[in-house]
Amino acid sequence: MKALYLEDLQAGQVFRGSTRIKVTVEDIVRFAREYDPQPFHLDDKTAKESIFGGLAASGWHTAAMTMRLLVDGDCRIAGGLIGLGFEEMRWPRPVRPGDELRVQSEILEKRESKSKQDQGLVKMRNSTFNQHDEPVQVSVGTLIVPRRGR
Amino acid sequence: MKALYLEDLQAGQVFRGSTRIKVTVEDIVRFAREYDPQPFHLDDKTAKESIFGGLAASGWHTAAMTMRLLVDGDCRIAGGLIGLGFEEMRWPRPVRPGDELRVQSEILEKRESKSKQDQGLVKMRNSTFNQHDEPVQVSVGTLIVPRRGR
Repeated sequence: MKALYLEDLQAGQVFRGSTRIKVTVEDIVRFAREYDPQPFHLDDKTAKESIFGGLAASGWHTAAMTMRLLVDGDCRIAGGLIGLGFEEMRWPRPVRPGDELRVQSEILEKRESKSKQDQGLVKMRNSTFNQHDEPVQVSVGTLIVPRRGR
Repeated sequence: MKALYLEDLQAGQVFRGSTRIKVTVEDIVRFAREYDPQPFHLDDKTAKESIFGGLAASGWHTAAMTMRLLVDGDCRIAGGLIGLGFEEMRWPRPVRPGDELRVQSEILEKRESKSKQDQGLVKMRNSTFNQHDEPVQVSVGTLIVPRRGR
């Protein structure tokens, strides 16, 4: 797959991940034990009495899995997917054991960097969907993207 | 530690995590292998030639470690730390092997929910610092916080 430079990207372009991640109870609990050990991410019984109504993945687990889907997807930026930060990040619904996640990204805008001649900034919306095509995470972030050498 | 309700929180309140996380090469590589397998998160030699100039933790790893610091900290919201989403998320500098991370949070505003009488929304800025007191992650997010039963 050809590496993408700033010149190859334009607003409206859509990238679809080519892989899916099936989320297991074990994955949810393992991530939560290390990074987000709250009862509703660790134990289904306790989770049933929580706001989630059942075991749910940590939002940061969903974010991490989304990153994996992006890295394995077809938006291969030259130099890698390097995020400066996000201006929006939402989890419209929980990720449950058995869910199968995929990602879709849309370029919202691009601009050349003012300070660095050899790179630009690309704003992108990444939407993570479950197997029912319901969004489980929506984020709008800015990537650093190199310009093609002249 | 007493669980906190909406009534206990007000703009300007600051919470400090009581723990620190020491970041190792092994942690960085293990997280990256599973969730963000890009060369600059996996191998120091390759990372030296990248924009990071050396091995750096995935931003999502930093986000996950920040969540752990928050969960172990003294901002014990009744019902747990449940994020609706973020309106800002930045990584001002990379996290390196050997860094020791801590978190500090400030309540920016709170409001009662319009749709749900028993809960409110609290906007919070979470800043993650390294051992040099330099911010490595800054996020502004909204938590769902229960109101005290009357």
